[in-house]
Parts: sequence; structure tokens; C-alpha cells
Amino acid sequence: MRFFSDNAAPVHPAVLAAMAEANTLDTAYDGDRWSRGLDDRLSTLFETPVRALWVPTGTAANCLALAALCPPYAGVICHRDAHIQNDEGGAPEFYTHGAKLMLAEGVGAKLTPETIATLADSIANDVHRVQPHAVSLTNATEYGLVYRPDEVAAIGALCRARGWRLHMDGARFANAVASTGCTPAEVTWRAGVEALSFGFVKNGAMSAEALVFFDPGLAEATLRRRKRAGLLMSKGRYLAAQIHAMLDDDLWIANGRAANARAATIGAAAGDRLVHPVEANEVFLRATPAEAAMLRARGFDFYDWAAGEVRLVTAWDSDAGHVAALAEAIAAL
Amino acid sequence: MRFFSDNAAPVHPAVLAAMAEANTLDTAYDGDRWSRGLDDRLSTLFETPVRALWVPTGTAANCLALAALCPPYAGVICHRDAHIQNDEGGAPEFYTHGAKLMLAEGVGAKLTPETIATLADSIANDVHRVQPHAVSLTNATEYGLVYRPDEVAAIGALCRARGWRLHMDGARFANAVASTGCTPAEVTWRAGVEALSFGFVKNGAMSAEALVFFDPGLAEATLRRRKRAGLLMSKGRYLAAQIHAMLDDDLWIANGRAANARAATIGAAAGDRLVHPVEANEVFLRATPAEAAMLRARGFDFYDWAAGEVRLVTAWDSDAGHVAALAEAIAAL
Amino acid sequence: MRFFSDNAAPVHPAVLAAMAEANTLDTAYDGDRWSRGLDDRLSTLFETPVRALWVPTGTAANCLALAALCPPYAGVICHRDAHIQNDEGGAPEFYTHGAKLMLAEGVGAKLTPETIATLADSIANDVHRVQPHAVSLTNATEYGLVYRPDEVAAIGALCRARGWRLHMDGARFANAVASTGCTPAEVTWRAGVEALSFGFVKNGAMSAEALVFFDPGLAEATLRRRKRAGLLMSKGRYLAAQIHAMLDDDLWIANGRAANARAATIGAAAGDRLVHPVEANEVFLRATPAEAAMLRARGFDFYDWAAGEVRLVTAWDSDAGHVAALAEAIAAL
Amino acid sequence: MRFFSDNAAPVHPAVLAAMAEANTLDTAYDGDRWSRGLDDRLSTLFETPVRALWVPTGTAANCLALAALCPPYAGVICHRDAHIQNDEGGAPEFYTHGAKLMLAEGVGAKLTPETIATLADSIANDVHRVQPHAVSLTNATEYGLVYRPDEVAAIGALCRARGWRLHMDGARFANAVASTGCTPAEVTWRAGVEALSFGFVKNGAMSAEALVFFDPGLAEATLRRRKRAGLLMSKGRYLAAQIHAMLDDDLWIANGRAANARAATIGAAAGDRLVHPVEANEVFLRATPAEAAMLRARGFDFYDWAAGEVRLVTAWDSDAGHVAALAEAIAAL
Repeated sequence: MRFFSDNAAPVHPAVLAAMAEANTLDTAYDGDRWSRGLDDRLSTLFETPVRALWVPTGTAANCLALAALCPPYAGVICHRDAHIQNDEGGAPEFYTHGAKLMLAEGVGAKLTPETIATLADSIANDVHRVQPHAVSLTNATEYGLVYRPDEVAAIGALCRARGWRLHMDGARFANAVASTGCTPAEVTWRAGVEALSFGFVKNGAMSAEALVFFDPGLAEATLRRRKRAGLLMSKGRYLAAQIHAMLDDDLWIANGRAANARAATIGAAAGDRLVHPVEANEVFLRATPAEAAMLRARGFDFYDWAAGEVRLVTAWDSDAGHVAALAEAIAAL
Repeated sequence: MRFFSDNAAPVHPAVLAAMAEANTLDTAYDGDRWSRGLDDRLSTLFETPVRALWVPTGTAANCLALAALCPPYAGVICHRDAHIQNDEGGAPEFYTHGAKLMLAEGVGAKLTPETIATLADSIANDVHRVQPHAVSLTNATEYGLVYRPDEVAAIGALCRARGWRLHMDGARFANAVASTGCTPAEVTWRAGVEALSFGFVKNGAMSAEALVFFDPGLAEATLRRRKRAGLLMSKGRYLAAQIHAMLDDDLWIANGRAANARAATIGAAAGDRLVHPVEANEVFLRATPAEAAMLRARGFDFYDWAAGEVRLVTAWDSDAGHVAALAEAIAAL
Repeated sequence: MRFFSDNAAPVHPAVLAAMAEANTLDTAYDGDRWSRGLDDRLSTLFETPVRALWVPTGTAANCLALAALCPPYAGVICHRDAHIQNDEGGAPEFYTHGAKLMLAEGVGAKLTPETIATLADSIANDVHRVQPHAVSLTNATEYGLVYRPDEVAAIGALCRARGWRLHMDGARFANAVASTGCTPAEVTWRAGVEALSFGFVKNGAMSAEALVFFDPGLAEATLRRRKRAGLLMSKGRYLAAQIHAMLDDDLWIANGRAANARAATIGAAAGDRLVHPVEANEVFLRATPAEAAMLRARGFDFYDWAAGEVRLVTAWDSDAGHVAALAEAIAAL
Repeated sequence: MRFFSDNAAPVHPAVLAAMAEANTLDTAYDGDRWSRGLDDRLSTLFETPVRALWVPTGTAANCLALAALCPPYAGVICHRDAHIQNDEGGAPEFYTHGAKLMLAEGVGAKLTPETIATLADSIANDVHRVQPHAVSLTNATEYGLVYRPDEVAAIGALCRARGWRLHMDGARFANAVASTGCTPAEVTWRAGVEALSFGFVKNGAMSAEALVFFDPGLAEATLRRRKRAGLLMSKGRYLAAQIHAMLDDDLWIANGRAANARAATIGAAAGDRLVHPVEANEVFLRATPAEAAMLRARGFDFYDWAAGEVRLVTAWDSDAGHVAALAEAIAAL
């Protein structure tokens, strides 16, 4: 019973079916009808004209966005536990040609205007110091917390005031939106977000994320950067088809809700053991090594996190029986 | 009837089936059993211990290889019509951090020791000139010609003598091997090739190429570069499974032979119109705009190439009837 | 008697004197009064408001300019014999993060609108091909030819029409201006040049070139790039003082004229041997190896160039007696 | 009376004299006799064969060293207050093509094996995390503390054990060596340092630092990187001559001692106000804004540092009278 990561979950049947359906001769790269349809599809979802590009990984989406928002000689403010800082193998520095990640604080990996301003105000505005040029939020965060629209908007206002750009890493955007019940628009462009990495792979897709630009002017250069990074798949229709399948019948949000519900069940059983509130599909639990071993002995797989903590992640397909068993096992510790 | 590019062909059913079979919960990234099996699988094929990494595009394979073989301050000799120079949107410069492509001559986009040496000898060996550090061949070439093992070996010997590394862009490696009848080993490491971009996407796969290192020491850094480029798919098993499917029962070489045979049929009909001998799956034809229009009017789709030339590409699935019709139409021009 | 290069000439006494005068305690970096005065000084010379930054080398000036004018994923059109292509060790690629130099033709290393357009029109405008984004001219060229204002303006008009930026490598700008008798303004911003590498080191300075932006908006980012490249000298006043000394009493143009006059003397003696007209301070001469040896035997030092050619360069301090002797020796060959 | 920074001090007369003496026609770049003599000169000083390159700034020296010691996909451990992190405008990221600076703790900006290991051990050794590859120390540190040879050796041993390279930023190397009385060899290569940025500009030179490689194999690629960064001055002899002048008669160490002695005088007067012990030429003082204003009112110029702290820096030429007056003024606060 695996609670390692939503990363490793299987692909949703509807996605596989859409890929099979795309298995005809069509134009290469992104000239096919699925790829050409993404702008419209995402513009409808976000209630505003957007440009949307498929990319094969979340790291690629994030880092293309950062390259579009921050010049090489500047910096991107992010949380010190952000995925772009800790889990992307230096890809932000590669794509931005060496921009600096600037690490801010915040409970549960959430930034606030205050923590951002504290960091920024510590940086003398001279030519010797790299200057911040953009902010990147992760929603849901690396600890499974979500930003409400007003929280993003407060950060968006700060960015506007300082002349910075705003990116959202939405590897778990579906879980975040499902959690708050807001619209996709409210928590993104209406709150000042200019580029969104809209994740599908953790949520039922195989190999397609959407990079969504709310400032459409950013897309042209990014088309070139995507090619230049070796990311322009010659059979792009199989990626675009995945995204269409995820959007059809709101599968993306249904899958996000399903994963969140499973996590909530576990969280409810965990009580005081919770390190963070369970707002999306991740549960961080205080557990001694002995307790972790007991859970593993009962067939549950998961990662140790910080000392005395374990992480349990649910996915769109998490089995209700497994989850119930896990909840019971945790409660019984 | 589309003869645009093998790029756009559908995916072979065996590949789709293998992907469906991989649709279970397994370890993320390249920790799954399919990914872990690639080294063995390719080592067997190449009759020597190799390291093999899946990547999603040929551009990614080529450019990771170049980054492994050439430092940022040096240069890579390639043909002036090479894919890395003309069709990868600057990816070689991105991945190598600015190494210079150095453009050599050669009939049919084939390099020879002589054309390489002529170029290299024109470059003064001082600190003001970027120095060559590697050679990259395309096999089959951009004009559908193939290198025989002895031709590669002559270039390999030159590289060794000069202290350069040797890469082969094998986007159409299957077509090349099928054409010469040599073994994969003979035309690669036995001839001095140190890294091979082994293409599958043009040959029946969906989104997986293999980057094969005959110098296994090059693989470690490349694992990091692959991650850093946003190419480490979290569900890598779906890529690895494609490669396994292509190697099963020698599907890769069967597909290469099939495409070559179709091209040969067209070539035979073309006679004096051929710009290059047809050795793989591409046919370059002299045709006036009027003649090209006539072919198109009969339902054949293809690209114009240089002035008065058109390019016709066959694929693993090219329909025999379409090909016969095309051959007839060309003969009737 | 050295005719190797103006690169190696001594420093003009007025420059040394100005450096000695700057040898007081003042603000570090570019906060001193000499550095702060450069904008005004160059704005006066160019009859328009400019931003001017000192940099220690011509390569630095060129490459900071290119980085300001061309994004990493695009290309810079230059002559195939341009200094940026052949003599800067890959610095353009380093500073631009991998932009591609695109090599055009032209007699005497001079570009024309026609040779530029021929190159550009051969590049398909799709995402697979790197697209040109800027043009870089060298004035005087690497073969000692100069652009007249109308020649630059024709290229400037082409750039505007295509949406490209225009850079001038003026390592020998003084020689060029002295040669045509035009004003500095006429041959630069009035003709469409947006950034000029204004060379002083070959013309009597020790270690200071001026990077002049006619589009002042380009300067801010370049201040950061200059620092980021390790080029922001902590004692910048010694560089700024050199530039002031070169501008005082029009020393720069006087030195340019002096070098040109010496080259003209040699050129006049060379007659039919000239490979290129002598328009600035370089003389390219047809000479057999035996003839070159004869000149060397008489005490003249210079570089061999292409087969059967030698290059002779004069400088601001070239000795009239040496030049007369050289002219006589050439005439006597 | 300026105590802003040793950066801004004038050039020592012996350095100016050496530059004037170098003002003859000689070979360009680093082919002149002064440049060619640096290896020998520094090898003698360090009692081992070294390769030594002049560069115009300390930032350039540091970042060329880091590029030689760390690949783009890895990291450099340094103190969070290190100059390379805070004062070089992102140059380390530019030169290394995006390597990550990894920030360790330590009193007075001094690293210890423990603080380094604590940081490194927090980084999971997988492909998702950038891995440390080198350590960079500053000696004297940004707070004017010095490393004793045994302290460096302990860090050197850790580096060897972990397979990391070791760099020393010696912008104030003279002050550090003068402070401990050790030999240059003891605190560098004998303790495991592989590359040293040997600073002269803060210590009496105008525009020349030496980048010293104790692993001579690192120099060849660095010669190319230096050119590629636009740092290869065409009249390099004026830089090399500065270094020779600084080494003649041990001027460098005499100047370091002089600056240290002045700082010691101030430090002695400061008593309990000292934030850090005064070991080199920097004094960090607790002072209220009112107290700082009083000092300024008496004619002393200096920087505010952290809240309630000011920084006073002495140089090779600090006036004894000014220093005595400052000491008195501080004592009288």
C-alpha cells in the first residue's frame, strides 16, 4: 500500500484512451489539432485569454516560467522549502542562466507579504547585490497547505508595488483549487499571477503539464525556449491529448478532490500527530522511528521526512480500503 | 498520403501495448524496473557494457551528449547541414553553455576525415580562437545517406589522434543499420563513437529516445544534467517501456527496414531526379514547382526543400499502396 | 620595427598623466567623479544623450553590447571574419548565454544590406531555426576598411525594417572616423546604431574602452551585467580617467589620424600588392614567403595572414622613420 | 578621513612606477616578459610549482576559480556572509553556468568543518538535489577574522574526504598572512587549498589580482575561460607589472602589516564596542546612530553595517594621525 508520492500513481484510463485516440498521423510538434486547441481550452477554464503550452515535466514548466519572468542577473524569491530550490536539480539556474533563488520564510512553506518583504528589504539596492525580480509560490505548498485567493492577491499586490513578476508552481493546483473551492481564475490572474505551472502528472496524466501565461506576451519567447531546451516533442499531440482528457468533464478537479478526501481521512485519524493541517493531499505526521516501522510492518510505504516525521501522500486513485486501513493503523499507534 | 516526415507517424501498437502494461504503480523517475533494465538491454544489443538513459526527444539526447563531450569554451565540429545546427533551436548552445558549432563540408551531409581536418586546420591554436573538442555525425544523415563502419572508424581515428570526442546523432540509427547491414557495435563504439543518440520516435515510439554512453563514465554527470534540464519524467517507466518494446523481437530494425524499403521503391521510380542516392528512408527529388504541384494535386503531401527540390520521407508504417501510387506518379511526371 | 598590432603599442603620455592625477582617494567602483562624468562627455561628443560605461577590454564591450541586444535563444548576424566570431574565444556565446553568431559575406569584411538579407532570408522562420535578432558591424573592419555613414544607414534601415538591433564594434572607431571625416554621430546613432564599442586601447589608452548606448534604456541592465562579469573594477577612476584623457583636445581623433597616415604611406608604396584598399591603419599585402622573409630580415615584424599575404598595422606612435623605411623596403621587393 | 574601504585607496607609488616602466612596446595579451614571469615569481613565494594568471578584479579571480573547481550542475559551499554570495552581483552563477552557492554558518564569517558538514549532511544525495562539489573560504573573512593554517587544514581534510575542491578568496590575503605570521604556503596548498584569489587591489595595486592554481592542471582551461570572459587585456603587461611590484621587497606583506597595525590601534580604543576581534584591517564597532553621527561630525567617513554597527576599514596608506584621531574619538564616545 503505497503512500510515497502522487508522482508514482498510474495514469487515469481516460488519459490513456485519449492518447490512443490521438494515435493517428497528424502534424508534428505542436501543429496538431490537440495542441492548437489548448489556448482556447485553458482560456475558457481561466475566463480570460491565455496562452498555454504543453511541457513534459513540472520542472520544465516551472523553469520556463522563471526564465520568462526573471533575467539572468536577477533573483527569484521563493520559500526555502520550495520545490524549485530543493528538488529540481538546479534547473531554475540552468533555465534562467544563473538567476539566484532567494529564500524566504513562512509556516508550512507558505510565503506571506511580510516574509517576502523582510527578505527583500535586507538586500541593499546596489549593483553588488543581486536584486529580486520575481516571486514564485507553490500552491498547494510542499507541505500540503493551500493559498486562498486573498492570500495570493496580497502577494500579487506586493509584486506590483515592487515591480516584480509572479509565478505559481501548481504541481498540485488541482488539489489546491479543490481545497479552497475558489475558481481557477480567482487564485491566479485575478490575484496577480502571471504564469502558472498547471500540473497534471501528479493528478492522473502521464507526461503532460500545461504552462499557462496570463500575460500572453510571454509566450512567444517561451516557445523558442521550449524548443531550445529539447522539450518540443515531435509527437506533441500525445501530450496535448492528455491535457484535454484531464479537462474533459472536469476530471482534473474530480481527481484533486478524490486525493484530498483520502488525505482528509488520514488526517482525521492522525489528530495531534499532524505537523501541518491537511488541506490538500499530503499528510505530515509526527511518528517515532518505531512507530514508522510499525506502520511499514503493516504494509504501508511512505517516506521519512524530517527527524520524527513521516510524509504520506494520496493520489487520485488511492484505494479507499488502503486509506481506511492506514487511518486505523495510525489511530492505533 | 503524407510523406512529410517520419516524425509525424503514429505509434506502433506494440509500443502502445507496452505503455499500457507499464500502467501500474511503480517507483517514480527512473527507479522502476523498466528504466533499471535499460543498461542491460542496450549492453546486450551493443555487445559491450553501456549506460543508457531515456530522454523524451532527440534534441535532448543530442545536446546532453554534446554537454558531456565538450566544455563550454570549446567547439563541436558538425556538418553545416546537421540537425544540431539547423533544427534544434539553439539547444546545443543552451546545453553546452555556449560551445560553438563548427561547420564542415561534405557531400550529402556526410563528414569525412578530410573535410573535418580542413576545417580544424584552419583554426589557429591560440586562446583567441575557440578550439574543436568533439565531432558529431548524423547517421543516417539529414539527406538520407548512411555511414559505413569503416567511414565512421576513419573519423574515429582522426578524433583519437586529435584528442577529440565523438558523438553520433542516430535519430535514424535504425534506418542506417538496416541499410548497411552492419551490427550496431560495428558502426558505433568499435568505430570510436563514445555517445549515441539512439532514436526511436521517428521509428515507431511515442516519446522515448535512448542516450547511450559507450564510455560509461560519462553517464553520472549526465544523470544530473538530465534532471537539471527538466527532462527527468516522474513517470519514466512509460518511456523506458517504449524502448523495451522497440528492442523486443528487433522491432526497431524491422521498422527501419520497412521504411527503407518504401523509400527504395520511390527512389527506383525517381531515376535521374534523385539529388542523393536513397540509402535510408528519405528521398530528395528534383522537381519543378509545377511538378511538385502535380504530385500534390494527386494527394501526396511533402516538403519543398532547396529550390527545385522536394523531400519525401517514409516511415515504419508507410502504406504500400500509397508508395506504389507515389512511385507511379513520379515516374509519370 | 614592430608592425604586429596596434594592440601592443605603448600608452600615450597624456593617458599616463591622467591616471597619475586620478591617484587620490575617491569613491570606489564607478562612483568617482571621472566615471560619473562619462555620460556627459560622450553625450557631447555624440551630440545626443548617451549612457557610457567604461570596460577593460574590447571583447567585454562587444559582448556586453550583444547581451543587451540579443536574447539567448536568438542570433547575431556578423561577417564571417568578424572579431567577435574569430578572436574573442567564445565570449559572445558566454555573455549572451548561447546566442548564435550567423555568418554573412562581404568584401573586406564589410557587410551590406544585400549580404545580410541573403543570409537572413535563408533562415526559415520557425521555432526549429534560431532567428536573427541583431547585427554587429566592425568599423573599421578587420581588413582595415571603413563604413561611410550612408553604408551604415542602409544597414540600419534594414535592421529597423526587420525588427533587429544594431551594434558597432568600434575597436578602431577613431581610425574609421578619421578616415571618412564624418562626425561620430553620423556614423552611429544617426545611422541606426544602438550600441557602440568605442575603442581606446588600440589608440593610446592602457585598459579602458567605452561602451556607449544610444538607447539609454539599455544601460541599466548592462551595469548589472558588467558587475556580474567581474568587470566592475574597484578603482574604476583609473579607467575613466583614460577615456577623459583620450577625449581631451580630441586626442583620440588625432591619434587615429596619425596611425592612418602612417598606413597610407605604406599603402602608397605597396601599389598592386594591396589585398584591400588602405582606409584605416591596416595594410594587407600580397607577399611570397621569400618576400616576407626579406622584410623580416630588414628588421620589420608583422604577422602572416592568409597564404601569400601579410598584415602590417600602424599605431598612434608608429615611427615616421620606421614607416619610411618599410615603405622603401616594400617598394624595393 | 575615509575609513570606507581599502578598495578606494590610492595606488602605491612603486606600483605606478612599475607600470610606467612597462610602458614600452611589447607582446600583446600575456606574451610579454612580465606576464610570463608570474609563474616563477609565485612559485617561489609559495615554495611549490604554481600557475598564476593576472585578472583585473577579485570577482573575476574568484569566479574563474569556482568555474575551474565546480561543474554547472553542482554547488559551492561558502559562508552566508561570503563576498561571492553577497557582493559579486551573481558573478559566481554566471561564470559557473549556474552552480548553486550553498550557505553555511560560522562566527565572524568563518567556516568550520562542523558547519560545513552540517550543511552538507542536510542535502540528500540524490539527483533531485544539487550536490556540493567545492568549498570557498574567505581569508581574511568579510568580518576581518583570519584562518590559521590548522583551521584551513581541517577544512582541507574534510574536502579531501568528501571529494570536494577547495578555493580561498584572498582579497585580503596579505592582511591574513601578516596577521598569523604563517608562510603563504602553510595557509594554502599545504592545508589543501587548490586555487587562491590572491588580492592586490585592496593592498596597493591598481587593477591586478593573481589567480594562483596549486593544481597546475586547472590553469589551461582557465586561460580559455579568462579570454572568454573578456578579461584578457591586450596590454596585460601593465597588470603583470603591478603584481611584480607588489612582490618586490615583500611590499605586499609590508602593506598588509601596515593596514593591520592601523586597525589594531582603532580596535584597542574600541574595547567592549568590538563586534569581532580585530585580526586584520577591519573594525566592526557597536555604535548607536547618535554615536555614528558624532564620529561623522568629527570628519570620519565609514559605512553603517548591521543595525547598531559600523564598519571601519584601514588600508596600506591609512594616515597615522587620522587613525589616532579616530581612536581617540571612539574612546571618547
